Amino acid sequence: MSDGNIAADQLRLFLERVERLEEEKKGMLDDIKDVYLEAKSQGFDVKTMKTIIRLRRMEKDARDEADALLETYRNALGLH
Amino acid sequence: MSDGNIAADQLRLFLERVERLEEEKKGMLDDIKDVYLEAKSQGFDVKTMKTIIRLRRMEKDARDEADALLETYRNALGLH
Amino acid sequence: MSDGNIAADQLRLFLERVERLEEEKKGMLDDIKDVYLEAKSQGFDVKTMKTIIRLRRMEKDARDEADALLETYRNALGLH
Amino acid sequence: MSDGNIAADQLRLFLERVERLEEEKKGMLDDIKDVYLEAKSQGFDVKTMKTIIRLRRMEKDARDEADALLETYRNALGLH
Repeated sequence: MSDGNIAADQLRLFLERVERLEEEKKGMLDDIKDVYLEAKSQGFDVKTMKTIIRLRRMEKDARDEADALLETYRNALGLH
Repeated sequence: MSDGNIAADQLRLFLERVERLEEEKKGMLDDIKDVYLEAKSQGFDVKTMKTIIRLRRMEKDARDEADALLETYRNALGLH
Repeated sequence: MSDGNIAADQLRLFLERVERLEEEKKGMLDDIKDVYLEAKSQGFDVKTMKTIIRLRRMEKDARDEADALLETYRNALGLH
Repeated sequence: MSDGNIAADQLRLFLERVERLEEEKKGMLDDIKDVYLEAKSQGFDVKTMKTIIRLRRMEKDARDEADALLETYRNALGLH
């Protein structure tokens, strides 16, 4: 077997690993969409849920600071 | 001049128009980045500014509803 | 238990399901990055691998047509 | 006029500059879409045009190398 063939086999294996992982990732994305659809069918608002998930990911200190800054800017602009 | 040549010229013109517009779009993106950098250098928080711009784009009714939903969800979860 | 509490529990469960799936998705993305890094360390070109993966996803007919169109356009423009 | 008011005016000016630029950027994006639609109506393939624009942006050396790598990988995999 030539070096060229070995490399081709190796390349094929790498590609197949990526493709399998991409497939699984696509499955995850579909599952996430399904949870949101189910929540929506139960009357929850998807956009607000996504904001909540972003807020839950933050440390309490960072969240407090972001809240305070937003409040300050909205007040400064009369944006209510 | 053959049809093939006419099509090539036409194609080239379309491509050049797209490329010119892409160039201008890139200039706009750079300008936006510059304004944010300037605001940051004056002590403003860029992330909060981006949230504010999103809120200003919304109709008052939609903004009120989004505010109320977020408040309800945060209270329900004790997320403060 | 009031309706409000039931809804809060339900919301929390939906959020936790999404967060678990997001976590798994992030794991997949990291794994994909790792495969590419490993392939790169073996001498493969990541950008070309990504093009190959896109081509492998296509039906043979669609791939043939895309190849032919690109060749025609490149020839028309002398883009080699 | 208090410092607070000065900052509010300054903030408002930064936001308005960003919003004006965002508006112009949106106009550019619409114009680009229109050129592609016009080209499509003249029989050109938009996807191929986008590939061509990407290739035209590359230096000749980089384009030659990318072409050669893709050809090598496709041959190794029998992907034609």
